[in-house]
Amino acid sequence: MGLLSKPIKTLNDLFVHTLQDVYYAEQQITKALPKMIEKVTDPQLKQGFQTHLAETRSQITRLEQVFKLHGETPKAVNCPAIDGIIEEAKEIMSDASDPEVLDAAALAAAQAVEHYEIARYGTLIAWARELGRSDCATVLQQTLVEEKATDRKLTEIADARVNRVAV
Amino acid sequence: MGLLSKPIKTLNDLFVHTLQDVYYAEQQITKALPKMIEKVTDPQLKQGFQTHLAETRSQITRLEQVFKLHGETPKAVNCPAIDGIIEEAKEIMSDASDPEVLDAAALAAAQAVEHYEIARYGTLIAWARELGRSDCATVLQQTLVEEKATDRKLTEIADARVNRVAV
Repeated sequence: MGLLSKPIKTLNDLFVHTLQDVYYAEQQITKALPKMIEKVTDPQLKQGFQTHLAETRSQITRLEQVFKLHGETPKAVNCPAIDGIIEEAKEIMSDASDPEVLDAAALAAAQAVEHYEIARYGTLIAWARELGRSDCATVLQQTLVEEKATDRKLTEIADARVNRVAV
Repeated sequence: MGLLSKPIKTLNDLFVHTLQDVYYAEQQITKALPKMIEKVTDPQLKQGFQTHLAETRSQITRLEQVFKLHGETPKAVNCPAIDGIIEEAKEIMSDASDPEVLDAAALAAAQAVEHYEIARYGTLIAWARELGRSDCATVLQQTLVEEKATDRKLTEIADARVNRVAV
């Protein structure tokens, strides 16, 4: 079974498995972000990552709340997707010596992470609704709103880089 | 260096590396989609995947056009992120025997793939503009528009599932 802690037989199994997957992903993000904060030089990007680290911690608490509402013990399962995104980011960032290039790579990695989370929370919310768990959907929705706002902020920083070059 | 075919020293190196990464990702998607088309039962989802397979092939041609415009030979480099997303999807889909659960897992995997691509093409377009390559940005933009439309279609299918349950 590899990744799966138990066979996926029902939509409920799929929902719980994906909660565990995102729980793992958020934990990996809290481990990766401090190193990214240390490495980047753009003050806006540094600040953005600091805010996102605080948000990620409260998103983990929210996931624990959803596990509890759903009668499950919080548990993480490996998520090769987030591992792949973070591995790629680390490799490129360790290789980039120019601060401008390093910032660009960090920004791109953060946007890939945000989009992964937007996809996963969107899915979890749909499944919570299919399972009649609007209580869980409401909690998860708060995080989805935050993730989308973070992605918009990152896009603004990316656009500012382009405009700075274009001036 | 692992993933990197050459050191990332400049924004141009980063742009070319990410083009190679997405080129690999699109190829992996064309390999994974036929198996997903075969397995899913929802006709709308099956049709959506078939359309996306045709689109992915033309997106690969567009990437080859961007490599050429930029004076580079098309080349793929390993992308652990897309490998992780596809690995996770395969494992869950091989485990799900219920067609409804399998369709839900396939839909979720496709949305994770779309969001990965949306993030990567958004980044590539920003970098193409920073590098003064508006010709490359224009070609990449056509794919980004398609990826966003595909994500919207998948979201509609997911919403239809929820509404069917709610009726």
